[in-house]
Amino acid sequence: MTKLYIIKIGASILDNPGVLASFLQAFTKIDAAKILVHGGGSIATQIGRKMGIVSKYEQGRRITDEETRDLVTMVYGGLINKKVVAALQALGCNALGLTGADANVMPARKREVQAVDYGWVGDIEAHTFSDEWLMQQISSGICPVMAPITHDGKGNLLNTNADSIAAELAISMSKRYDVNLVFGFEKAGVLRNPNDETSVIKTLNKDEFLALKEHKQIYAGMIPKLDNAFRCIEAGVNSVRIGMAERIEGLILKQDGTIIS
Amino acid sequence: MTKLYIIKIGASILDNPGVLASFLQAFTKIDAAKILVHGGGSIATQIGRKMGIVSKYEQGRRITDEETRDLVTMVYGGLINKKVVAALQALGCNALGLTGADANVMPARKREVQAVDYGWVGDIEAHTFSDEWLMQQISSGICPVMAPITHDGKGNLLNTNADSIAAELAISMSKRYDVNLVFGFEKAGVLRNPNDETSVIKTLNKDEFLALKEHKQIYAGMIPKLDNAFRCIEAGVNSVRIGMAERIEGLILKQDGTIIS
Repeated sequence: MTKLYIIKIGASILDNPGVLASFLQAFTKIDAAKILVHGGGSIATQIGRKMGIVSKYEQGRRITDEETRDLVTMVYGGLINKKVVAALQALGCNALGLTGADANVMPARKREVQAVDYGWVGDIEAHTFSDEWLMQQISSGICPVMAPITHDGKGNLLNTNADSIAAELAISMSKRYDVNLVFGFEKAGVLRNPNDETSVIKTLNKDEFLALKEHKQIYAGMIPKLDNAFRCIEAGVNSVRIGMAERIEGLILKQDGTIIS
Repeated sequence: MTKLYIIKIGASILDNPGVLASFLQAFTKIDAAKILVHGGGSIATQIGRKMGIVSKYEQGRRITDEETRDLVTMVYGGLINKKVVAALQALGCNALGLTGADANVMPARKREVQAVDYGWVGDIEAHTFSDEWLMQQISSGICPVMAPITHDGKGNLLNTNADSIAAELAISMSKRYDVNLVFGFEKAGVLRNPNDETSVIKTLNKDEFLALKEHKQIYAGMIPKLDNAFRCIEAGVNSVRIGMAERIEGLILKQDGTIIS
């Protein structure tokens, strides 16, 4: 099968133009089919603040009300996405910026109101999306650049977790490709000791993950990221790696970061 | 040759959600290949004002400085473009939102500094863009939705006139399609008397245009619009029509508006 790299980047890269530029150079050098998935970064918060948009919380969870949804649509789907696309084009990478609404690439479902009403937040239903069009693009040399925005098919855009988008894409594409998924974040990998950057766990299997979780050595945002990672491996994704996105070359040559096995 | 409709809409449609919704319904019903090109509308100005961005002018011309460029990228390329795409998807039209940077669909050149430095404004050089990819999309049932943003191939996004984008697309696509271009705007057509909405000129040829221009019956923003229209006809576009975009059905059935001949 043809190799396909899916690389997810978040705030640690997007908030720093210098780091983003060197990441994009390294990304362009990946000599294989590839998809870039980006999250948000702090710029939406900064722009929201200038516009007088106050983030709303319910039971400690951030709520995507209508004005926040418009904010993330324009910042993630417009400003960040198109800047990344233009930068990749300048490097000779034929990038195509997409939200889930474009070509209906990633339909989702508005999260149901239960204890918390998250507002305009979308959850992707695994394998509900048609990936034929995306595969055609990839095989014709296009590099899709996905913003963390989906839609419900009823005209509503939905704020969607970029890790989940990367995971669902990886699972779906693994039917046809040898998919290598990389979750880039601000640390060198999954750390045995969160305060020690040198304590990177080289390979992590599910039993070890569950044990570390039980002992509270892995917690907070790392848990959904790893849940996504193990779900991918179980669903047939060839490899999943977690590490510092700015060291993408090392991550791809399999020297740095944590391998999920 | 296969028929292709290219419809350009601007502020008169985009600023009014109700009008936009009924336009999109009518647009979806066009039973042929189609491209939608949208301009800006007043929402960028409103958001810019909230963000404290003050429009800058030089010799009466609006300047696209860096923060204005970021503003239009996010509002035109993100908010407006993705809302239109999601609305079209809900109507069963397989829309794909694009700026000129995406898939390198429309490279442009930063306008040279002469008497005025317009800033990050792009001019499209006729026929410099490769349209193969766009034609592939259209023939596979995709409806491209173009935002008025291009790029210079060096990583810079450029604010670009939507009428010019529609015209260049029409000229380029006319090599392979029977292109019918519609410039939608706020009037029922080109008016013989700007103060009389019933004075629509049914058909306008170049000599008549030049005479009306000389007698100052056509002026201001109408002149570049008509220059674009005549350039298209001369370059092989099958038909060009100017009229009220919300009456798109009438415009397409060739009853309303002004036909450029």
